[in-house]
Amino acid sequence: MVTLEELTDIAGVRYDGVSIDISGLNTLRDAKKGEVSFLENKKYVNDLLSTHASAVFVSPDMAVHVPKDIIALVDEEPYLKLALASKLFAPPVMEDEGAAEPQVGEGTEIAAGAMVCRGSIIGKNCYILPGAYIGPNAVIGDNTIIYANATVYRDCVVGSNCMIHSGAVVGSDGFGFATTRTGTHVKIYQNGNVVIEDDVEIGSNSTVDRAAFGSTLIKQGVRIDNLVQIGHNCVVGEYSVLVSQSGLAGSTELGRNVVMGGQSAAAGHLKIAPFTQFAARAGITNDVKESHKVYGGFPLMEQRSWLKLQAKLARILKGKS
Amino acid sequence: MVTLEELTDIAGVRYDGVSIDISGLNTLRDAKKGEVSFLENKKYVNDLLSTHASAVFVSPDMAVHVPKDIIALVDEEPYLKLALASKLFAPPVMEDEGAAEPQVGEGTEIAAGAMVCRGSIIGKNCYILPGAYIGPNAVIGDNTIIYANATVYRDCVVGSNCMIHSGAVVGSDGFGFATTRTGTHVKIYQNGNVVIEDDVEIGSNSTVDRAAFGSTLIKQGVRIDNLVQIGHNCVVGEYSVLVSQSGLAGSTELGRNVVMGGQSAAAGHLKIAPFTQFAARAGITNDVKESHKVYGGFPLMEQRSWLKLQAKLARILKGKS
Amino acid sequence: MVTLEELTDIAGVRYDGVSIDISGLNTLRDAKKGEVSFLENKKYVNDLLSTHASAVFVSPDMAVHVPKDIIALVDEEPYLKLALASKLFAPPVMEDEGAAEPQVGEGTEIAAGAMVCRGSIIGKNCYILPGAYIGPNAVIGDNTIIYANATVYRDCVVGSNCMIHSGAVVGSDGFGFATTRTGTHVKIYQNGNVVIEDDVEIGSNSTVDRAAFGSTLIKQGVRIDNLVQIGHNCVVGEYSVLVSQSGLAGSTELGRNVVMGGQSAAAGHLKIAPFTQFAARAGITNDVKESHKVYGGFPLMEQRSWLKLQAKLARILKGKS
Repeated sequence: MVTLEELTDIAGVRYDGVSIDISGLNTLRDAKKGEVSFLENKKYVNDLLSTHASAVFVSPDMAVHVPKDIIALVDEEPYLKLALASKLFAPPVMEDEGAAEPQVGEGTEIAAGAMVCRGSIIGKNCYILPGAYIGPNAVIGDNTIIYANATVYRDCVVGSNCMIHSGAVVGSDGFGFATTRTGTHVKIYQNGNVVIEDDVEIGSNSTVDRAAFGSTLIKQGVRIDNLVQIGHNCVVGEYSVLVSQSGLAGSTELGRNVVMGGQSAAAGHLKIAPFTQFAARAGITNDVKESHKVYGGFPLMEQRSWLKLQAKLARILKGKS
Repeated sequence: MVTLEELTDIAGVRYDGVSIDISGLNTLRDAKKGEVSFLENKKYVNDLLSTHASAVFVSPDMAVHVPKDIIALVDEEPYLKLALASKLFAPPVMEDEGAAEPQVGEGTEIAAGAMVCRGSIIGKNCYILPGAYIGPNAVIGDNTIIYANATVYRDCVVGSNCMIHSGAVVGSDGFGFATTRTGTHVKIYQNGNVVIEDDVEIGSNSTVDRAAFGSTLIKQGVRIDNLVQIGHNCVVGEYSVLVSQSGLAGSTELGRNVVMGGQSAAAGHLKIAPFTQFAARAGITNDVKESHKVYGGFPLMEQRSWLKLQAKLARILKGKS
Repeated sequence: MVTLEELTDIAGVRYDGVSIDISGLNTLRDAKKGEVSFLENKKYVNDLLSTHASAVFVSPDMAVHVPKDIIALVDEEPYLKLALASKLFAPPVMEDEGAAEPQVGEGTEIAAGAMVCRGSIIGKNCYILPGAYIGPNAVIGDNTIIYANATVYRDCVVGSNCMIHSGAVVGSDGFGFATTRTGTHVKIYQNGNVVIEDDVEIGSNSTVDRAAFGSTLIKQGVRIDNLVQIGHNCVVGEYSVLVSQSGLAGSTELGRNVVMGGQSAAAGHLKIAPFTQFAARAGITNDVKESHKVYGGFPLMEQRSWLKLQAKLARILKGKS
């Protein structure tokens, strides 16, 4: 908990009002009372009208839209100010020596050379292999296997009956920063976590970034292959399948049973309908609203269109078109 | 070793015959007496006729093709039944405390913080760096270097004069599962291993998956760059070169001296002729039968055709076509 | 330090002259007195004329261009000979038990389970998490965080205020080898290092290869996302941003504030002007000389041209062109 005065001080925003207590940062949509949010992109102005945030970083031209009961923190660069403020809420990097010893369920085996931090809770009948790292306050369900040299960052949650393969990283920082006018970057501390539900398998050397605020969410039954990237604040729907070397940029949401082919990728902030299939190398830059279709290509099109286009290009190559 | 009764019980397949001993699962082609196999894809029906398997999961319409001396385990979803049965043969996750201490050859240095499991055999003059993990029963040849935080899963074999760089993972589970009619997934336990021959170098954070049955094989003299994916049951021919971020889906076989350019990828179950070169980003979806050619593009074509096509597209862009 | 006689012996090059002391190998351009270089590609013949190397591997037809005060080591395969010689200068793999204990600055916390080798120097107020590996003679600045299971190879330098996320590998061997006429490969030992300047963040499971000679250089303020590949001898300019799954082949140089979109990649030995932006999947095979432009596609073109081309292809698909 910090005061609004501390927050505006570190952000370098002028604020002369009363200094309330601030519990964290969040998006306009998810902010609760006591949290600070921001409006950078005008297309989210409606979220400003309905937010529960107590204060909002906002540009001068948007300040008029801030509801009366919300404190407007007016600045030309609201996103940059958010970034500067984010450091205040960063959790400690190291484990707290005063925190409780890990709670370990019955039947769980923690190998010599595994690293399980204080404050963590591990369920029953798990295997934690050598070199695996379970950060402070992480929670692991029952019957889950964390293979050698896999990493689960602090505060992350892994369900029951999961497998996290070697070298996979759950909960590293999302790729968030604000860029100043002179081209330098200010980190947005990633103060959320990752939540992995039950029956999820994550392949070796895949990465699932923690959320800037809230949680990156991998739902039940998801299968993630090797070397897959899941950006911060993504939601991966139940039983979705992500083939090797595919990637999701930040805040993209897959419905249930979506298939991402090998080396396919989606841009950020997209919503993909359930049961959508993307062929290998598909490049997704828009929402997919209709379920049960198959897409491919970059730019994305229905896979049968892509095949047809390639046939036409083959004709062009042969000089027949 | 399990009995056929136990196997059909866990798979949920009705079987009233005599309960023979079953030693494992395998493909129709590679199965030996005492093993159980499956026929899911009708194009492999010829393999059914010549298999040495003792029993086969097979769909009702294919049951007639099962030779008389082989037990037909008839079910609408043979691949799913195989998946359910695979768990019976999964090796233990943790090392067996009763197994022999690792055998370590003369001149080998194992750093403090390296994790070498029981049952493993390490040759002469090796270096095993801190954080490296050598699983149970793994075998490492002579003069091989396993760098810090590299992982070799249980039962895998690494030859002599190899280098496995940091973060590389050898022997994690292949991406195998059967999907039920309701869209959930059932893991196919990956009960094979990885065999890496001599003089192989594997770059940092590359992944080589263990086989579902049998071995994923990396032959002598192969050079694998960083962040490369090798799927389960692949065979990579002698002296082949896989440049960074390239990938092979499961069961694909490269002949000797194949070059996979950066970010190129091959679909599964393909055979690539020796001395084939794939340019960066090549996307391979069919067998390559003729040696010594250069390919690129996706869909794949000869590299000179791809260059010609791009020139034509440049003309189209300029409105000249 | 070796003698030229030892070097020509191991390389298998005939040399009957005086045996001077040789301190290392280097490119023609960067070689200093006492170093040996090579000329393989005739387009670098001008570098031969101005090099400070004491001896040069050179093919018979190029030998005439070697300045009189430089020793010509004439062979049909100069690059192969360099490779054979490179082993002489390889640093030891393991830490030197006689080297000094790590120097650790005030306020730095090294977690139990972190592996910090002798000869390394770590600044003030750093955090080194469990499973992180800091190789022999590595240098870490102040306030830097090395997360769990990250790896910094020997001799590498990481600046102040950096974050190296879990599974990232700094300083693994560049992908360098010479191929013989029979198709086998001879490793070029990577005897350089990686230098990371201040305020750099490297995402989880990204890889930055050490230089063959000299340094791979990541300049101040760079932001590298997850699963990114940086080849040996690259230079990444200040405040450049590399989005997930992008890659740079060896010796490519980015100017300041270059943006590499997700899954974009650059071939080797390129120079990219400052403030260039590459869209996702951009494939870069030529130098970019003009600053402040946006490119995409493969082959690369200005992003607006790529969009125009895709629109034309959409028309072709619909049969309107």
